[in-house]
Amino acid sequence: MKEVRIGLIGAGRIGKLHGNNLAHAVPGAKVEAVAEIMLNDEHRKWAEQIGVRKVHEDPQEIMKDKDIEAVFICSSTETHAALIIEAAKAGKHVFCEKPIHTDVKIIKEALDAVKLAGIKLQVGFVRRFDHNHKKVKDTVASGRIGKPHIVKITSRDPDVQPIEYVATSGGIFMDMTIHDFDMARYLSGSEVTEVSAYGTIMIDSRIKQYNDVDTAIVMMRFENGALGVIDNSRAAHYGYDQRTEVHGSKGCIQVANDLVDTSMISTADGVYCEKPTWFFLERYNNAFIAEAQAFVDAIRNNTEMPVGGKDGLMAVYVALAAEKSLREHRPVKLADLM
Amino acid sequence: MKEVRIGLIGAGRIGKLHGNNLAHAVPGAKVEAVAEIMLNDEHRKWAEQIGVRKVHEDPQEIMKDKDIEAVFICSSTETHAALIIEAAKAGKHVFCEKPIHTDVKIIKEALDAVKLAGIKLQVGFVRRFDHNHKKVKDTVASGRIGKPHIVKITSRDPDVQPIEYVATSGGIFMDMTIHDFDMARYLSGSEVTEVSAYGTIMIDSRIKQYNDVDTAIVMMRFENGALGVIDNSRAAHYGYDQRTEVHGSKGCIQVANDLVDTSMISTADGVYCEKPTWFFLERYNNAFIAEAQAFVDAIRNNTEMPVGGKDGLMAVYVALAAEKSLREHRPVKLADLM
Amino acid sequence: MKEVRIGLIGAGRIGKLHGNNLAHAVPGAKVEAVAEIMLNDEHRKWAEQIGVRKVHEDPQEIMKDKDIEAVFICSSTETHAALIIEAAKAGKHVFCEKPIHTDVKIIKEALDAVKLAGIKLQVGFVRRFDHNHKKVKDTVASGRIGKPHIVKITSRDPDVQPIEYVATSGGIFMDMTIHDFDMARYLSGSEVTEVSAYGTIMIDSRIKQYNDVDTAIVMMRFENGALGVIDNSRAAHYGYDQRTEVHGSKGCIQVANDLVDTSMISTADGVYCEKPTWFFLERYNNAFIAEAQAFVDAIRNNTEMPVGGKDGLMAVYVALAAEKSLREHRPVKLADLM
Amino acid sequence: MKEVRIGLIGAGRIGKLHGNNLAHAVPGAKVEAVAEIMLNDEHRKWAEQIGVRKVHEDPQEIMKDKDIEAVFICSSTETHAALIIEAAKAGKHVFCEKPIHTDVKIIKEALDAVKLAGIKLQVGFVRRFDHNHKKVKDTVASGRIGKPHIVKITSRDPDVQPIEYVATSGGIFMDMTIHDFDMARYLSGSEVTEVSAYGTIMIDSRIKQYNDVDTAIVMMRFENGALGVIDNSRAAHYGYDQRTEVHGSKGCIQVANDLVDTSMISTADGVYCEKPTWFFLERYNNAFIAEAQAFVDAIRNNTEMPVGGKDGLMAVYVALAAEKSLREHRPVKLADLM
Repeated sequence: MKEVRIGLIGAGRIGKLHGNNLAHAVPGAKVEAVAEIMLNDEHRKWAEQIGVRKVHEDPQEIMKDKDIEAVFICSSTETHAALIIEAAKAGKHVFCEKPIHTDVKIIKEALDAVKLAGIKLQVGFVRRFDHNHKKVKDTVASGRIGKPHIVKITSRDPDVQPIEYVATSGGIFMDMTIHDFDMARYLSGSEVTEVSAYGTIMIDSRIKQYNDVDTAIVMMRFENGALGVIDNSRAAHYGYDQRTEVHGSKGCIQVANDLVDTSMISTADGVYCEKPTWFFLERYNNAFIAEAQAFVDAIRNNTEMPVGGKDGLMAVYVALAAEKSLREHRPVKLADLM
Repeated sequence: MKEVRIGLIGAGRIGKLHGNNLAHAVPGAKVEAVAEIMLNDEHRKWAEQIGVRKVHEDPQEIMKDKDIEAVFICSSTETHAALIIEAAKAGKHVFCEKPIHTDVKIIKEALDAVKLAGIKLQVGFVRRFDHNHKKVKDTVASGRIGKPHIVKITSRDPDVQPIEYVATSGGIFMDMTIHDFDMARYLSGSEVTEVSAYGTIMIDSRIKQYNDVDTAIVMMRFENGALGVIDNSRAAHYGYDQRTEVHGSKGCIQVANDLVDTSMISTADGVYCEKPTWFFLERYNNAFIAEAQAFVDAIRNNTEMPVGGKDGLMAVYVALAAEKSLREHRPVKLADLM
Repeated sequence: MKEVRIGLIGAGRIGKLHGNNLAHAVPGAKVEAVAEIMLNDEHRKWAEQIGVRKVHEDPQEIMKDKDIEAVFICSSTETHAALIIEAAKAGKHVFCEKPIHTDVKIIKEALDAVKLAGIKLQVGFVRRFDHNHKKVKDTVASGRIGKPHIVKITSRDPDVQPIEYVATSGGIFMDMTIHDFDMARYLSGSEVTEVSAYGTIMIDSRIKQYNDVDTAIVMMRFENGALGVIDNSRAAHYGYDQRTEVHGSKGCIQVANDLVDTSMISTADGVYCEKPTWFFLERYNNAFIAEAQAFVDAIRNNTEMPVGGKDGLMAVYVALAAEKSLREHRPVKLADLM
Repeated sequence: MKEVRIGLIGAGRIGKLHGNNLAHAVPGAKVEAVAEIMLNDEHRKWAEQIGVRKVHEDPQEIMKDKDIEAVFICSSTETHAALIIEAAKAGKHVFCEKPIHTDVKIIKEALDAVKLAGIKLQVGFVRRFDHNHKKVKDTVASGRIGKPHIVKITSRDPDVQPIEYVATSGGIFMDMTIHDFDMARYLSGSEVTEVSAYGTIMIDSRIKQYNDVDTAIVMMRFENGALGVIDNSRAAHYGYDQRTEVHGSKGCIQVANDLVDTSMISTADGVYCEKPTWFFLERYNNAFIAEAQAFVDAIRNNTEMPVGGKDGLMAVYVALAAEKSLREHRPVKLADLM
């Protein structure tokens, strides 16, 4: 089967991650070109290392390139939607990092363009490809624990991000919890209909000026009647705490964190085990590879993308409802935002 | 040191549990008399077995008995407050099963009587004496995980109770979650100031007629700034799921369930472990003994009771706020109920 | 049903343990008398506390007491066999702490006396009553892991005993490993036919003068073809390490230690869990109760004792073979000792 | 830094594994040529896929190739030593799969050639690069658990190999336990001085004709005074059981298996977890990469190989001693074989 030739847009941390995976770990993929608006020598060197000869500043070069069948959009969030639209016009399939946009109207325009062009779109909710969370999903879907009653998600970053990052992040719900909102939909197999959010600042008081919080709990109601809850922290300190649990009419499935190793050291002072893997690069390394592979396979086999535009849209709706709930100090129904 | 002679009021399931512990497992305690309003031969036989010769129908016989220094109130909930008042007048120390009452005005009257009489009162929040939850409390109090940020409590009964029980239980928050509300205060070392409750019926549709729910999630705000969340189910199926977790500014402590045994059976089909202990009799067996011992010790040493009247009152306030939140579909501040 | 009235011989550490259990935790048992050769006020006070009025120096008083139906032999090891014979002559059932004797000829005389008198004899291999090891046994017996291939036992004391204790202990194999030899027979459901022992002194060099070791590994062959291995240490430091594992033709069962609690504390420094329970009093507390209950029940129901004289004898044979193997630096067949 | 150009000798299962890793996952390595004595189209196609243009039948083509700086010897065991000697003569560094040979005289000749030529040699004891076993090693070496007393290794293959494989495997000790013998030396930081082996046939009776066993236990004495034990099975059924444990003067470190995922499914029937990863390809995938990286790095930095010729030789000595012990039914000192 022919290789899928890919144009990578954005060569920052997440762009490099995808580029490396596509070059080395995803059979069937070929990185044909890289575009980076802030292009410098370091980017050029990296591109060479992964065997890419076409290196551009302007993503339009990728859009015009007839050799390129698909694009990975890894640029800054506010550019995602416009790039999707351009790729759609150019007839190229799109992998887009999350979120598509923070404005649902603009997301819908992008999704309309995708539909019109008949291209495939995958949104980067990478946790769906994690062996643990996927096991929860598959077990729920199999009926083994019955009808879902309660979905619980613990999601804590290892350490507080630089204040500059937080300032432009779009807020905890849009930046961080959005992954958990997608998990909630994924694990429950149902849409969120209402959320109630509590948030507070416990870690870095400077974020108050950005009208943001660093510690939060969000309750959810799902269309299928189940309840859900997410707890978030910007600084767990002991690693990336990523646990999910679904309790259903027949029992419960829960997944613990992946640990650095399985050691147990027992002395007179106590028993010491290893911490969870540090952050997303360590924890979701294999999931990023599986995600890119799924994208490439869906193109080669002309099948549905496993995480589509609607998934990108719905998670943003939940995040917006959570923001509104926190601000207005009341439960917010998603229907009221639509 | 002299034994504490105790009058036991109520010889149902929980009364017998305390009676057996006081008779066999609590050095320094002596069950002097038993009173049971529905007294029958089975009660008489049990009393004989634990070496009690004074068996009454009327609790007043216990109140009048000069040999008796303390009472265990294990009768039905609506009688608790009146019996506390009578015991206080009789100058007897009181151990009272939870809740004291569902009406805070009546609780306050009972607490006033206790204060006036100068007797000691302990309320039966037995989980505070569980080795696991106590470890969480002590670790938080030690500062080892820093200032508390998030308190999480999972509390699921193993199987749905008879509908008759649910009908008169006072509702899930007053009957079941009240233990978790006490845990929340105990673990956080702070008062709950606001709650938001979600509840639904997933297990037994008949409870709708009692205006109750069987599946619930409650978010809390604490005075010290921390957030909390409880998830409840009336039917876990796999045993009594009783986990607590506190995340703080330096890290996290969590406790898992006690299991029936530590076995791990590995075959081609998978790895099988044992379930959590079945219900409160199994899980909190040692905690019930420690609780009674603490009561007896506080009397003998003339020290403070570890769980006092205020604890009994505050947990009821939280339960009432949760009920109101569920009914009115909005966050409820405790201050508005006081 | 009538209570079994018991005479307790020996009121040292293990005698008190059994006395307390029989008095408080074993329905159907009554401690009628206590005999202690080194009788002092402390013994008398303890006997009073558990409600025993008959307190003797001479065990013969117990043998002569017509009210007494059964004896618990908890005196020093060298007196066990003679006391069994006397109890048998007196027609009293016997619970005897391990080992019966270190000389198999003398054990056999005791067992002959038991047989002749038709009394019941239980030997104190308490680990058979532990919830974890019993689960291993039951799982193997059920066939769930198939035919046993490998039996593994880890057995490490928490800390080195006083040198005086070691001096008179009879050596590590007869004092400590004998429990593991019984476990090996119990878990495999088969007799040991040959052992190869390695031993060394790593902990306390003074024990060299007693021709003993403090660190040992013993391999075994079983009649049913399976292999076994035990590793022992006199000083684990982190608690009482008591793990068993059986691997069979269909899979494996292993049991971990019981821990002090289920806590997991995660900080930037690592993850800290609790240690195993400290020593046999903590770990096998419930097993001691179950053991005594089984003894009492077998008398009341006139059924077989769960751990009989043959078990007492065979474990001593294995210990003798291990000693010989270590001394002669070669594998030793049990048949050669019989 | 310049890439290390490697000639791969042998393109069977293990050769392909190394070839794929060197091509995709080991920065600094380049597979320059592949030689396979049984060369077919499938080999050619695979070589093309990993970007190798030089494909030979005769390993001599690799020896003669001036572009090649190092070789990976992944051919059948009996060819290893001769190929090492040829590579040494050609001045090429060598990575050699275990064992170097089953005849120590021939191993010594190969090591002499290595020494004479001044090339570097690494032997393929891949488990030293596993995150779990390495953690045990590092913890022991750090002194955190004190001086080693007992080393325990559980090593069970998931399922019985084809009888043809077993027939030519060289026997369980040389084929399978040799990895554990290397682990024993690695973890203890000491040489094995004596072994006692028990073995039996529990799984496949046909192996009797090859004078082999499928279930074994081996005790070891180490130069530093510690004791060790290995238990082996050719068919665990529940996955690749690879656990190590060292108990020392201050405590113990043990590592459990890596599991397929961290899920725990709790229902009324019990609690179900995932199995260990299936076999060496899954369990030691990252270790194979780290091993090859270490080889390449040692060449580029001109440093010592982490696993050298002496390691290859000593593990074979222990295997030979174990075979002799099993055959002669007695402990065997390694000194007697040297």
